[in-house]
Amino acid sequence: MDCFISDRWLSADDLKGGLPLRTMSTSAVVYEVLRTYNSLPFSLKRHYQRLKLSAGLFGMTVSVSYSQLVKLVSEGIDRNREKIQSREMRIRINLFEETEGVSSLILIFQELPEISRDIYELGVRVGISPHIRPSAAIVNPVIKTPGLPWNVLTRRILGENYEMIMLNELGNIAEGSFSTLFLVKDEALITPDIKSGVLPGITRQIVIKLARSMEIPIEERNVKSWELFAAEEAFLTHTSAGIVPIRRILDHVLIEDFTDGLTRLLLDNFEGFIMSDEECWTGVDQ
Amino acid sequence: MDCFISDRWLSADDLKGGLPLRTMSTSAVVYEVLRTYNSLPFSLKRHYQRLKLSAGLFGMTVSVSYSQLVKLVSEGIDRNREKIQSREMRIRINLFEETEGVSSLILIFQELPEISRDIYELGVRVGISPHIRPSAAIVNPVIKTPGLPWNVLTRRILGENYEMIMLNELGNIAEGSFSTLFLVKDEALITPDIKSGVLPGITRQIVIKLARSMEIPIEERNVKSWELFAAEEAFLTHTSAGIVPIRRILDHVLIEDFTDGLTRLLLDNFEGFIMSDEECWTGVDQ
Amino acid sequence: MDCFISDRWLSADDLKGGLPLRTMSTSAVVYEVLRTYNSLPFSLKRHYQRLKLSAGLFGMTVSVSYSQLVKLVSEGIDRNREKIQSREMRIRINLFEETEGVSSLILIFQELPEISRDIYELGVRVGISPHIRPSAAIVNPVIKTPGLPWNVLTRRILGENYEMIMLNELGNIAEGSFSTLFLVKDEALITPDIKSGVLPGITRQIVIKLARSMEIPIEERNVKSWELFAAEEAFLTHTSAGIVPIRRILDHVLIEDFTDGLTRLLLDNFEGFIMSDEECWTGVDQ
Amino acid sequence: MDCFISDRWLSADDLKGGLPLRTMSTSAVVYEVLRTYNSLPFSLKRHYQRLKLSAGLFGMTVSVSYSQLVKLVSEGIDRNREKIQSREMRIRINLFEETEGVSSLILIFQELPEISRDIYELGVRVGISPHIRPSAAIVNPVIKTPGLPWNVLTRRILGENYEMIMLNELGNIAEGSFSTLFLVKDEALITPDIKSGVLPGITRQIVIKLARSMEIPIEERNVKSWELFAAEEAFLTHTSAGIVPIRRILDHVLIEDFTDGLTRLLLDNFEGFIMSDEECWTGVDQ
Repeated sequence: MDCFISDRWLSADDLKGGLPLRTMSTSAVVYEVLRTYNSLPFSLKRHYQRLKLSAGLFGMTVSVSYSQLVKLVSEGIDRNREKIQSREMRIRINLFEETEGVSSLILIFQELPEISRDIYELGVRVGISPHIRPSAAIVNPVIKTPGLPWNVLTRRILGENYEMIMLNELGNIAEGSFSTLFLVKDEALITPDIKSGVLPGITRQIVIKLARSMEIPIEERNVKSWELFAAEEAFLTHTSAGIVPIRRILDHVLIEDFTDGLTRLLLDNFEGFIMSDEECWTGVDQ
Repeated sequence: MDCFISDRWLSADDLKGGLPLRTMSTSAVVYEVLRTYNSLPFSLKRHYQRLKLSAGLFGMTVSVSYSQLVKLVSEGIDRNREKIQSREMRIRINLFEETEGVSSLILIFQELPEISRDIYELGVRVGISPHIRPSAAIVNPVIKTPGLPWNVLTRRILGENYEMIMLNELGNIAEGSFSTLFLVKDEALITPDIKSGVLPGITRQIVIKLARSMEIPIEERNVKSWELFAAEEAFLTHTSAGIVPIRRILDHVLIEDFTDGLTRLLLDNFEGFIMSDEECWTGVDQ
Repeated sequence: MDCFISDRWLSADDLKGGLPLRTMSTSAVVYEVLRTYNSLPFSLKRHYQRLKLSAGLFGMTVSVSYSQLVKLVSEGIDRNREKIQSREMRIRINLFEETEGVSSLILIFQELPEISRDIYELGVRVGISPHIRPSAAIVNPVIKTPGLPWNVLTRRILGENYEMIMLNELGNIAEGSFSTLFLVKDEALITPDIKSGVLPGITRQIVIKLARSMEIPIEERNVKSWELFAAEEAFLTHTSAGIVPIRRILDHVLIEDFTDGLTRLLLDNFEGFIMSDEECWTGVDQ
Repeated sequence: MDCFISDRWLSADDLKGGLPLRTMSTSAVVYEVLRTYNSLPFSLKRHYQRLKLSAGLFGMTVSVSYSQLVKLVSEGIDRNREKIQSREMRIRINLFEETEGVSSLILIFQELPEISRDIYELGVRVGISPHIRPSAAIVNPVIKTPGLPWNVLTRRILGENYEMIMLNELGNIAEGSFSTLFLVKDEALITPDIKSGVLPGITRQIVIKLARSMEIPIEERNVKSWELFAAEEAFLTHTSAGIVPIRRILDHVLIEDFTDGLTRLLLDNFEGFIMSDEECWTGVDQ
């Protein structure tokens, strides 16, 4: 696949100019991962804004405007579309400091890994990570930087789990290693607040917006770890797969049947909602 | 300067083959930074061992044996010696996961930034970072991975400070953003223990060894932040500069005169000690 | 000096029969509560030892020897036996500092509140307290002093719950407001360790001893709050009622049927065990 | 039932003049300690309000109205005035639960211990307590109940220190075992906020009011333990002695000369301020 590196397009197979060496001797890298729906970059504007926020906290500036990024991303999708079988892509935007005060962009295009329909029908198994995800009192959760130890350590031990939930240093639920968590209890949604140590995930935001549009009550608050087991339903949200129902937590079967309930209702409405939500496609020609 | 990337030597100016793309889409990177004394790699064995430890925690294996690494590093020093004015170099070893389970090595050689003799005679100013360095109860401090947010955030705001000391979530002293801290009180050394959230620094270890050889009592324990101000002397240790005396903490002058005291004693003995300490040169032809 | 007590003025000198005034102006009070079985004081030796430990931490000495205490307690039981219908009593031992360095003892005898047999057959409901019980890192859990805020605050809101479980500041299970907790999972017992912020309860210790005698594996460790919900069985232990099975946690039914399982096994063996265990009756004439 | 109290057996019914027995078997006690100036009860209204607040948190109601309390306190002062040499008294108000839902009051009058003028001229020495005072995230600091372990444990080890400062579980300054702390830095006052785990002390409130009236800037915030050592001046406040300057923290001399500075300014204005501040004498005939 072709990548955009600093100022030009390169083929991954034939990476003549190489990645700037500085990317390996600097520490400050922030990134975003987005996906396409119908070959259009989903929620690119929100990713751009979050990238700017992360970058700002690390003292970097994003060197391209939003409309320049739209153009680059669209060109990347066009360049690579032929090369993949599936129609959808995953796009990684890396921003790193090339020299003091000068930031560079790398766009990497990959085929979106195929997602089994089963996970939506049967739900997935999640574990509980032994690794702590510090709360916002310790580490600003807005910073999306690669290699955060708790994420790397948790992903290594997923085993047969689709995801593992990390608790923060107070024993409250934070997030998964690549996803955020929602619980259903008494016909309301509950999700850990950002203070708990949760990346303000784009899909998380959209699910909250969807729930509000459906007049489903939603609580963003600190969530004790036991509430996961006392919930009636639970699901994960992440960019690649959207809403993923949870069937089991460890060997505790939370729910057997997803034909009913709030998770199903949200799942059934998710794709329709994002397709028609203008904020998800700002600046992108549909 | 020439770098070693995965399996070959490349010139930084002419990086034809490029850094493997995967280094920018993977999260798991561990690294070491060492320096030379008299163009010999200092404490390479200890760095190798720590790299293996870090790598193991992240599920990677170091693909080269120690003697292979000695050879690569020595070759790199030889290749690059001519290109730099100063005789000493800083060598960065990056280990990243190329594909699942396969790790690759990147060696980057740079000129060691010149260190002003003044810092040893006059001492430096340190600040206290507003960013928290989590203790070992939250994040394993052995993992040396680039981009840990507290380090990036602290380095950004150093200003006129040589370094800023980070406290952990319990308010105890952890470490600096690139150095560790020692206090002198009642003719003994005090340094935060690893549990406090301190990278087991190589220079830190050597100073402890040096102090023991001089029969200076040393306490590794949790250290309250106020002890920094109540200390008689204080110094930093880090790879590039060795032992760096602290003159001021914020606007509090800790010590004016470094002609006397334990810091001076350790400074005066440091270079002699490391030159004659066999462990510092294991496997390296002196 | 004259004092106002409840509804009248009294001279401190004239306070003949009364409780020493100092008990109301001093802060240091430690206490024990024990019960009788067959009108004999149960585990009096253990309570005496714990009282000494608590007292020592508060800088007080217990002014009576163990054999003197046995005599006092036995006399109190004899004096009061006629006055109560039920045969069993609850005995409260208060130790307070009368003047600097001089401690005094108060023994209060009360009828043991009747315990419904139902709780052993049907199990009880427990809640989760919103009040935090600090771990041993913050407050030494060995100190048994009246009026610890978390206990008072939790007891006020029991409502329909038999007990409420308090979590510590790390979100781990500590103890109830008057009891300790055991979980059953995979045919083993799990109970929070003392470090979690658990009074080293006498009944807790006896249940551990009983379990060991029955070769039931037992883990004393930190216990995440979710483990309460993931347990197969759970029970409380406290002086008055011994082992109390838990049926429900909030509205989550943990277990419906107590005719089987480890809780039943322990319940069936508890009274026989304590009756024949010599340590429970040290120095007491049976 | 008969009870054993200190050295004799008493019938509970027969416990005529004495303190209600229940005070020794209940846990819920809240209290206030105030002093007189010119034989008038100082800030009685504020103490009454805080008592009500504490009582409310413990589920008790204060059975007397404020005007009834003024009458009782005034009567007690009159009754006891002749008996003491010094003109000033310390008055302790204990509120305890006599039976479920019924609270009783005990007023204890004592001579105010003589305060050496030296402490105001020379300042006092304070230590740092090894015992943790939990922050408001763990224990509500408004509850003024006797026997809080951190206070008892700290008071036991004062030694040559006038007071010892307790840190909270985050390593921030909370308060002393009977006083609160103020720092002076850059011509402003700094004092730990209530969230840090500070009893909202009456003298603390008055000093804040005094400072505001003198247009001295004041920061209520979390205060790192090192700030104590980096301060220019520091003082304690507590009921008996008002404002008490700190000369030394451990063996660190903070300030030698109190003839100048904010502490002296506040000291010189304190008594005049409280004498003329109407809120300090609400409902009391001056």
